[in-house]
Amino acid sequence: MTTALPPDHPFHTFGDAPYVLAATGKPTTTLPVWFQRQAGRHLPEYHEVRRPGSILDTIRVPDLAAEITLQPVRRYGVDAAVLYSDIVTPLAAIGVGVDIEPGIGPVTDPPIRGAADRARLRPLEADDITHVTETVASLARELPVPLLGFAGAPFTLASYLIEGRPSRTHGRTKAMMLGEPALWHELCERIADIAVEFLRAQVLAGASAVQLFDSWAGALDPPTYATHGAPHTRSIFERVADLGVPRAHFGVGTGELLTLIADTGPDVVGLDWRVPLDVARDRLGPEIAVQGNLDPAVCLAPIPVVEAATRDLLARNAGRAGHIVTLGHGVLPETAPAAMARIVELVHGA
Amino acid sequence: MTTALPPDHPFHTFGDAPYVLAATGKPTTTLPVWFQRQAGRHLPEYHEVRRPGSILDTIRVPDLAAEITLQPVRRYGVDAAVLYSDIVTPLAAIGVGVDIEPGIGPVTDPPIRGAADRARLRPLEADDITHVTETVASLARELPVPLLGFAGAPFTLASYLIEGRPSRTHGRTKAMMLGEPALWHELCERIADIAVEFLRAQVLAGASAVQLFDSWAGALDPPTYATHGAPHTRSIFERVADLGVPRAHFGVGTGELLTLIADTGPDVVGLDWRVPLDVARDRLGPEIAVQGNLDPAVCLAPIPVVEAATRDLLARNAGRAGHIVTLGHGVLPETAPAAMARIVELVHGA
Repeated sequence: MTTALPPDHPFHTFGDAPYVLAATGKPTTTLPVWFQRQAGRHLPEYHEVRRPGSILDTIRVPDLAAEITLQPVRRYGVDAAVLYSDIVTPLAAIGVGVDIEPGIGPVTDPPIRGAADRARLRPLEADDITHVTETVASLARELPVPLLGFAGAPFTLASYLIEGRPSRTHGRTKAMMLGEPALWHELCERIADIAVEFLRAQVLAGASAVQLFDSWAGALDPPTYATHGAPHTRSIFERVADLGVPRAHFGVGTGELLTLIADTGPDVVGLDWRVPLDVARDRLGPEIAVQGNLDPAVCLAPIPVVEAATRDLLARNAGRAGHIVTLGHGVLPETAPAAMARIVELVHGA
Repeated sequence: MTTALPPDHPFHTFGDAPYVLAATGKPTTTLPVWFQRQAGRHLPEYHEVRRPGSILDTIRVPDLAAEITLQPVRRYGVDAAVLYSDIVTPLAAIGVGVDIEPGIGPVTDPPIRGAADRARLRPLEADDITHVTETVASLARELPVPLLGFAGAPFTLASYLIEGRPSRTHGRTKAMMLGEPALWHELCERIADIAVEFLRAQVLAGASAVQLFDSWAGALDPPTYATHGAPHTRSIFERVADLGVPRAHFGVGTGELLTLIADTGPDVVGLDWRVPLDVARDRLGPEIAVQGNLDPAVCLAPIPVVEAATRDLLARNAGRAGHIVTLGHGVLPETAPAAMARIVELVHGA
């Protein structure tokens, strides 16, 4: 079943854009490049406009969120815009009690710890996220490049909800997953439902592609990921497939999971820097596009080092179709914009 | 060149101990098992004896450090004792200004940021660590199993020194590594010298094996590890080889680095849980022993889950020689001792 997007939807305008072509494995005349967290903390123009306090407060103001989304597109000429938002946005919107504490990250108070907390994950409705769809609609009218919408995947979001804050070990999360699998799967299904609604709303409002962040999936061993993570990720990809837009996946430390991730159905698999791009492409096969994978920390080194790393990345892809250049994780806040600008210049000149 | 250990050195007593046999790839009648951080936070008897404040203060009291080292050996009957110490111990001992802050981890104040800080990494001398060698000597007289001494590897220790505290991104560390390689290598050589002296002192005082912790090596991509991490690790293994005791390596997230790590010369490669044991053994080949690799978070789940995971691990090794059972990282503080006891029981009954 295909849900035809309206004829004036930006996806039709951007059908030949390098990002969309590469995401679907087609050759491009210029290689597409964008960066996770390109909109935000490393840009001086961001600090000029953002509100104090939680970034969720800034995200809730459509004009501001749209402006911040546009800033890196103007400055760098990247090939995709990524909505200035956060994976906890839809959870905050349904009143789960999650916020982003500066210097810490997503904090859930009280955390989700048992069956009695299930009801806190009620279905997401259109009215909950009008601030997001307004931002997307306004961007869709202005942007010269495709807009990427995104959502968090069940494992990663469940970890923030269950641990109450970012966790190195995901101990309580894994204990619930393994010790109370029925509860685990029900929580994940509720989060997956929310992700599907959130992604669909963004596309229908004007986003031309979606990305699912299972940032911490790499904390799971392959058999555990296959049984407790992958089914929910697959369910999300399947339930947005009818929209026809490219669907990307991202997680860090996923070297051992790459083929399992590819089996969940994305068009694009995001890679962190731990797996050299050529190794990852060999592991995944030619059918799937990849996104990545410069180490964000490389961008803190002097420009000649950034240049060498970029050239090395391009050499590893060796001109194969289906490569979107990004970093292997988000832009670090202390990154100099000159480094990012140089990467874009080199990629576009390649 | 072999530096013969004195005839009364415990290594001679423990020549047929399951840990020593397995570490050198020989068959054992019972499978050896021990746990990183088996001595410490998860044990009630530890909280009864430890001093308030930094754990470095507890480590500095030989009677106390020896008692804490013995506690898990008495309780669990594990096949190796691991010295109650920390990888920053020798750095603190030479006055680098590093301490372990509760709830944070190793903190260096001021951090090491440039060439002027090199001199702070002066050579380690025997007098700096008499508290450690006294602890080891006292344990060597009492222990029914081999004692493992340990040290931190240059990349991991340099990250704590340069970042000033635990870092998810190792951004400043990588920026120095890539941007000022001569300074980077000089710092690493100084840390390697300290590690060699520290390991040799522990063995000469009575430790029967050594482990090098490059816990965060997995944050590096393979080419960067090969040029900036591995040479210093190799130098340490080479400079303790003459002692003749087993030498183990440990790091998390090292799936892509395993063969590079094996090439640095350890007898045993420690595995985290991200790579299934059978996959890792296939990748490494039959010549090298492995240590691992239950997910520490599994031990927070109900006992039947712990049992199933332990049986799965044993099945993956399929009776091959050269397997030492451990967790894929340290015991989590919230772990119930009953879970650890059950693992030991199952492994010893296998």
